[in-house]
Amino acid sequence: MFRKGKDGKTMKKEIPYKIYLTEEELPKTWYNMRADMKNKPAPLLNPGTHEVMGFNDLTPVFCDELVKQELDDDTAYFDIPEEIHNFYKMYRPSPLIRAYCLEEKLKTPAKIYYKFEGNNTSGSHKLNSAIAQAYYAKTQGLKGLTTETGAGQWGTALAMACAYFELDCKIYMVKVSYEQKPFRREVMRTYGASVTPSPSDTTQVGHKILDEFPGTGGSLGCAISEAVEVAVSSDGYRYVLGSVLNQVLLHQSIIGLECKAALDKYDIKPDMIIGCAGGGSNLGGLMAPFMGEKLRGEADYQIIAVEPASCPSFTIGKFAYDFCDTGKVCPLAKMYTLGSGFMPSPIHAGGLRYHGMSSILSQLYDDGLMEARSVAQTDVFEAAKQFIRYEGILPAPESSHALLVAVDEALKCKETGEEKTILFGLTGTGYFDMKAYEQFNDGKMTDYIPTDEELAKGFDTLPKFD
Amino acid sequence: MFRKGKDGKTMKKEIPYKIYLTEEELPKTWYNMRADMKNKPAPLLNPGTHEVMGFNDLTPVFCDELVKQELDDDTAYFDIPEEIHNFYKMYRPSPLIRAYCLEEKLKTPAKIYYKFEGNNTSGSHKLNSAIAQAYYAKTQGLKGLTTETGAGQWGTALAMACAYFELDCKIYMVKVSYEQKPFRREVMRTYGASVTPSPSDTTQVGHKILDEFPGTGGSLGCAISEAVEVAVSSDGYRYVLGSVLNQVLLHQSIIGLECKAALDKYDIKPDMIIGCAGGGSNLGGLMAPFMGEKLRGEADYQIIAVEPASCPSFTIGKFAYDFCDTGKVCPLAKMYTLGSGFMPSPIHAGGLRYHGMSSILSQLYDDGLMEARSVAQTDVFEAAKQFIRYEGILPAPESSHALLVAVDEALKCKETGEEKTILFGLTGTGYFDMKAYEQFNDGKMTDYIPTDEELAKGFDTLPKFD
Repeated sequence: MFRKGKDGKTMKKEIPYKIYLTEEELPKTWYNMRADMKNKPAPLLNPGTHEVMGFNDLTPVFCDELVKQELDDDTAYFDIPEEIHNFYKMYRPSPLIRAYCLEEKLKTPAKIYYKFEGNNTSGSHKLNSAIAQAYYAKTQGLKGLTTETGAGQWGTALAMACAYFELDCKIYMVKVSYEQKPFRREVMRTYGASVTPSPSDTTQVGHKILDEFPGTGGSLGCAISEAVEVAVSSDGYRYVLGSVLNQVLLHQSIIGLECKAALDKYDIKPDMIIGCAGGGSNLGGLMAPFMGEKLRGEADYQIIAVEPASCPSFTIGKFAYDFCDTGKVCPLAKMYTLGSGFMPSPIHAGGLRYHGMSSILSQLYDDGLMEARSVAQTDVFEAAKQFIRYEGILPAPESSHALLVAVDEALKCKETGEEKTILFGLTGTGYFDMKAYEQFNDGKMTDYIPTDEELAKGFDTLPKFD
Repeated sequence: MFRKGKDGKTMKKEIPYKIYLTEEELPKTWYNMRADMKNKPAPLLNPGTHEVMGFNDLTPVFCDELVKQELDDDTAYFDIPEEIHNFYKMYRPSPLIRAYCLEEKLKTPAKIYYKFEGNNTSGSHKLNSAIAQAYYAKTQGLKGLTTETGAGQWGTALAMACAYFELDCKIYMVKVSYEQKPFRREVMRTYGASVTPSPSDTTQVGHKILDEFPGTGGSLGCAISEAVEVAVSSDGYRYVLGSVLNQVLLHQSIIGLECKAALDKYDIKPDMIIGCAGGGSNLGGLMAPFMGEKLRGEADYQIIAVEPASCPSFTIGKFAYDFCDTGKVCPLAKMYTLGSGFMPSPIHAGGLRYHGMSSILSQLYDDGLMEARSVAQTDVFEAAKQFIRYEGILPAPESSHALLVAVDEALKCKETGEEKTILFGLTGTGYFDMKAYEQFNDGKMTDYIPTDEELAKGFDTLPKFD
């Protein structure tokens, strides 16, 4: 377990390939970054009246306990209920992996770690929040839940969670992903969920979107509108969301808390923390305890959000109140956004095709506490293909965005000789993304950057305030 | 970590959901059951002369070091080379999982454990032997390897291993699986392998089989013949096999050795050990150290091989020398077999569609040291669908054969009140088997049992000895 340090005197723990916490070490609380933020994220507003929405305004759509978590900017730690904790034990703690093989092949002096969230059937970190949301729905005595899904990872996670707690589950899946990933749909069905491609003709808002954008591949914004409509018009149902919301980031803090505990065991302090960001749930969770230290002035970290060049909410978007969904039925949130009417191109990273960004991350970014980079799809797949050779894991396209920037930073270290410690989030596996890999393998993948006209069209849909 | 026993006095370790060994505890040797067998498995024979084959007869087809392992009936432990050990650390030790949730839902007094081998990109245990075989090919200075694959798990594993050691990799994939699993092919291609559906017109033996059985979905036996032909006719290439052979069982003993070490940590002794059996690599590996104790008279275990009713090598097959492949180019092996000409129906558990069985397992079965059961496909999927709800993991159809018998045995315990400890092998995940799940979800799956005529036709192809 111990080997001599470079000076021949100090004894240092040898770092294994995978650092696993024991089940006793699994965090028993979630951490709420908002408690330590000086500038709190802006509150949700009523889309009609522009008034701040409170508990009673939100509970017709969301589960009661989740609304409490959504609105609580002060409580730093929330106990994880025992039922959720026990479910976590089925697939957590997830491994923190030292990328020894990748480092060797890159010949970098950097030390690369990744937190791998793909070892569960949903294939990603999404299950961390899905099981929590299903639990609160069950304890509230609800019949079922509705939701949207992009790449299908959130939908699968919710289907699993609902199956476990015996809740009905209705999923609206972004049409382009539904078509690219036929087997994803089947996994959700195997867990007993119903899956509808969105936009669909099963809702009023779906009809409206189809009229306006015939032939559209859909977007997360569309699918959210449909799922919300079904929830509020069905007795005993609520709507749940897999990203963006404060409550989701709270649940996902389990990723970062485990990570920090594992790193602390070996006295490792990362210099930079890198995560892909679509709605922000993964990066928000991964960075949570580190950002907490930064906010409290206890430590400093370079934190980088990576987004696709085709849907650059942070790097090109505006920090403004916007609709969370295309149908404009959800509350307004203040966030970095491309406008709810922005229709992202059908890139394969379905989980990153969202026009907006978590209010928490948006505020932190605006306050200069984190950075953002946008990257091209073909570069992302190039990094993924290198990674699978050296580290064995076939990553999801979403996760590969973070991987690409981690590799870029490691190669910079090779030039400068800096021995930086890089931590990135490998959010999931790409087993259901093989059509995208096929396209890449066949040299048929292209990059897409939105035109000024497309961006302007999106920004035009931002709500006007008097 | 400790809680009171039932009598309130003894203190017993609380068993976690997942027992992980540390990397230091990862076994450093493989265990060779043959060393402890009184009746050794029968030697391989030359298919033409029926003479026993030695080192020089086998090395034109197989890698030198692997032939040594194949022929060694005496050495009990083989050191695992450091390069292989380091690769193992990327995805091993695999978890031994206590099925707390399944037990609770079944309301059984039985204690169910499963060794889960699916947490790597190949999706199964196959990687344990693939990396070993690729390593020995690399150290021999070879250019590349050829192989066959059924469900695609072995092919993916070998593609990964070859990518890691920078070897060329040519894969012949059973046609029915190639068509059922388009994305499997793409994973192998992503790792740089070439994949050809078998039987194909790229080999002489493929031509011959296509002439005899036009429109056939292929079988592992056909694909082996093609891969061997390509290996022996290409300079710097050898053929490798993912199951059946003694060397493969040797490498797979890592599964059982880890299992035993994890159980020993908590003083657990299984009453029964259950594994699916196609060629026998998974069960042979899982049971290895337990069978060792049994052979040495140190302990007793009930060991059960589970095979599909559609391809019942153990339960209906004959114990005889037979061709390992349809094209009759491979050595003869003494094994339980349905005859190399037996064409199994296109059930979804591609990995179990092999006419024969490992010589080691065949000898042990013939000596009454283990049992075998055959099960119907729809029952297997029923068990799988129950399992994913309660334990979260979506199992491969192959693995679900073992799962079904484990559940059956747990339900028997419920009737008798016996608190048996059941260990089964969950060899892999079913992420690339969603067409099969779709068929089951839609109520369109049927069972298949070979007719007497089909069986007779297979047995007719057994070689005649003077």
